[in-house]
Amino acid sequence: MSSQRLYEKEELYPPEEYVRVEHKSLKEFVANVFEKLGLRRDYAEVIADNLVAADLLGISSHGVQRIRRYIGGIKVGSINIDPNIRMISDAGAAVLLDGDNGPGQVVGKKAMEIAIERAKKYGVGVVFVKRSHHYGIAGYYALMAVEHNMIGISMTNSRPLVSYTNTLSKYLGTNPIAVAAPRRNPPPLLFDAATSTVPVGKIEIYAKTGKKVPRSWAVSLEDGRELTGDAALILDAIKKGKAALLPLGGLFEETGGHKGSGLALIVELLSSIVSGAAWAVHVRNTTEPQPANIGHFFMAINIGALVPLEEYFERMEKLVQEIKSLPKHPQADNIWIPGEKAWLTKETREKIGVPLHQMVLNDLKSVAEELGIPFTVEVLKRGA
Amino acid sequence: MSSQRLYEKEELYPPEEYVRVEHKSLKEFVANVFEKLGLRRDYAEVIADNLVAADLLGISSHGVQRIRRYIGGIKVGSINIDPNIRMISDAGAAVLLDGDNGPGQVVGKKAMEIAIERAKKYGVGVVFVKRSHHYGIAGYYALMAVEHNMIGISMTNSRPLVSYTNTLSKYLGTNPIAVAAPRRNPPPLLFDAATSTVPVGKIEIYAKTGKKVPRSWAVSLEDGRELTGDAALILDAIKKGKAALLPLGGLFEETGGHKGSGLALIVELLSSIVSGAAWAVHVRNTTEPQPANIGHFFMAINIGALVPLEEYFERMEKLVQEIKSLPKHPQADNIWIPGEKAWLTKETREKIGVPLHQMVLNDLKSVAEELGIPFTVEVLKRGA
Repeated sequence: MSSQRLYEKEELYPPEEYVRVEHKSLKEFVANVFEKLGLRRDYAEVIADNLVAADLLGISSHGVQRIRRYIGGIKVGSINIDPNIRMISDAGAAVLLDGDNGPGQVVGKKAMEIAIERAKKYGVGVVFVKRSHHYGIAGYYALMAVEHNMIGISMTNSRPLVSYTNTLSKYLGTNPIAVAAPRRNPPPLLFDAATSTVPVGKIEIYAKTGKKVPRSWAVSLEDGRELTGDAALILDAIKKGKAALLPLGGLFEETGGHKGSGLALIVELLSSIVSGAAWAVHVRNTTEPQPANIGHFFMAINIGALVPLEEYFERMEKLVQEIKSLPKHPQADNIWIPGEKAWLTKETREKIGVPLHQMVLNDLKSVAEELGIPFTVEVLKRGA
Repeated sequence: MSSQRLYEKEELYPPEEYVRVEHKSLKEFVANVFEKLGLRRDYAEVIADNLVAADLLGISSHGVQRIRRYIGGIKVGSINIDPNIRMISDAGAAVLLDGDNGPGQVVGKKAMEIAIERAKKYGVGVVFVKRSHHYGIAGYYALMAVEHNMIGISMTNSRPLVSYTNTLSKYLGTNPIAVAAPRRNPPPLLFDAATSTVPVGKIEIYAKTGKKVPRSWAVSLEDGRELTGDAALILDAIKKGKAALLPLGGLFEETGGHKGSGLALIVELLSSIVSGAAWAVHVRNTTEPQPANIGHFFMAINIGALVPLEEYFERMEKLVQEIKSLPKHPQADNIWIPGEKAWLTKETREKIGVPLHQMVLNDLKSVAEELGIPFTVEVLKRGA
C-alpha cells in the first residue's frame, strides 16, 4: 500500500467544525497538563502518549477528548497520581499486580513491560492487574509487545453498558480484546475490538451524521425490542438507562449473541475474577470519588523463542497476501487486515495533523487557562 | 440447578429415529475399534473419551458419528498411529510441539498436559502445536485444566468454510475458541464456540427440522447475497462450493463481521502462523492421503499461584449469581452461563443414555463387522 495516500478511518462530520493539529505538539501539551496536575513527568508523558495514540489511530472516542475524565479523577482523588504499583504474586511467567489506583495508562504500561520481560525469560508472560483505572485503548499495550517482535494481548473490563444474552440489563462492559502481532514491515496486525457489536461512540457518530442504526447494536430495556433506526433516539435511551448495547452476535443466541456475551464474560474472568478487581456492574467511573478498581489482563508471546522469526514473518506475509488476493465482495470498499485502517489513519494524521472537533480544541484551551499553562497545540489547518 | 431435571441441549428430530445408548459401553466400543486398527490401548482410549465427551456434552456433530473420518485417516495413512510427539522448542513456559501427524486427540491431550505442567511451575503454560490432525471439540482440552483448578484455553484451525469479511471466499476455518474456568462446584464455566456465527452442523440440523436459516449465517459466493430461509438449499450450496459460512457478526462490518473474521484470524495466528502448521485454506481433511497438518494452541493459567483459590471461587459465584438474577428477556427460555447447557446435557445423558441416530448406530455395527470385533454398545431405549 502506498504511504502517500491519505486515509481516514473516521468520518469527520461536519468537516468544517474540525481543525487539524500537529500531533507532537498535542502530546507535549497533554503531558504538560498532567505534569501541572502533580504527576511525575514520565507518568504525564505515558498518559499523553496513550491519548494521542488513540487520536492517531482513529479511535478519537478514546483520545484527548477524554482528558476531562482523567483530570476529574485526579482532582476528586480517585486516581492516585503517585501509586506504589507492586507485585502481589509472582509465579515466574504469571504475575498479579496491584495498581494502587494509579492512572490506568501508567499501570497498564508497567504491567505490559513486565509481561514482555517475563516472555523474554520464559517464552510467555501474563500479568493480571487489579486496582487500576480506565487505561484508554487496549491496542496500545498489545502494540508494545510488537516492538519486541512479540505477540501482545490486552483486555480490560469497563463500565457496564452491555446486555448479557437473554437478559434485559446493563451488566457487562464493552470489555475489549486487543491482539497485536508483528509483521516484517508495518502495519502490524492489530485486532482491537469491543465484545459488543459497537461501542457507544459509534452510535454517537451515527446520531451526528444522521445514519440509521442497523440490527444487532442496541436493545430496549423496557420491552426487549431490538432498537434500530434513529440513532439520536437510541443514544438518548441508552443515556437514560432505557436501552443497552448488544453483544457481538446480536439479541439472541440464534445469531450468536451468546458468543459475544461469552467473550465479554471471559474478558471479565481474566480481568477481574482472577485478579480481584471490581467486576462488571461494580466497575466505577474514573470521576467518582471512589477508585474505579478496574482490572486488566496482559500477555506477551516471544515468537523468536519458539521458531525462527524469519519463518514466522514469511508465513504471515503469505497469509496476508492470500487474504488480500481473495475475490472482493461487490459491495465492499476493500479487503482489510485487522489494524490496517488504523495504521493508514495514523500515517495520514502524522502527516496532515490529528483532527479535533472545534469543541474539543476549545476545551483544551480552557484546560490550559484553568491550570495556568500556555496552550501550545499547533493548529495546522482549519477543517477536516 | 437440580441435578434431577433432564435437559437436552440438542434437538433430536425426529425422536423415533434415535436410540439411547449407555455411554461407558459406547466409549469402550470406540476404544476397541481404534485398538483393533493398531493403536496403543491408551491412545485408543483417548480418542474414544474425546468423541464420547462430545456426545455427552451435546455436540454430537463432533461425536462418534465422525468415527469414519478417523478410521479413514488411519487406513489411508495420513494419521500416524504411533507418533513421535516431540518438543521442537522449549522456552520454559512456552513450548512448540511437533505432533508427527498423530491423532489430533492424542497430540492435543499431550500438549495440554504439558501446558498444565508448565503452569504448575511458572504460573502459566502455553503450547503451540504443528503437524496434528482434527482434535475433536476444543472444550475437551480446556476442561482438562479445570481438573487442576486452572483456567484452560484451547484453539485450533480447521478446514476452510468461512468467508473472510469483505470477500467472497471459503478461506478460514470455523476456528473455535474454548475457555474453561473452574467453579467451586460443577458446572465449570465452559465457553466453546466457532468464530463463525454457526458451524455447518447447525445448518444440517435446521435442514432436517425444516427451520428457516436467519441472518448472519451464510453468504452466496456467486453474488454476495446473504442467504436466509430454506436450510436444505443453503446446505446444498455450501456443499457445492457456492456458499460459505459467515463470521460471527454477519456479512459486513456494520454488524461486526470484521470482529468474527478477526477472531478467526487470531486463532489462525496462534494455531498455525506461529507454529508452522498449515493455515486456513491449506488445512487438509483427515481422510486425504497427505496429513492435515493442523495447528493448535493450548494455555493453562494456575489461578492458585496468583490468588487464594477460595477468594477466586467466591468472586466467581457472586458473578454467576448476579447474572442469574438479572431480569430475563421476555422471549428467552432462561439465563445461561457458558457451558451450563452442555453440562446439564452431560448429566442427562450419563443417566438415560447418549442419543444416537439409528443410522449412526447401524454404522457403528458395520464398523464392528468390518473389523471383526464384537458390537458391545448397550442400547438403553428406543427413541430419543
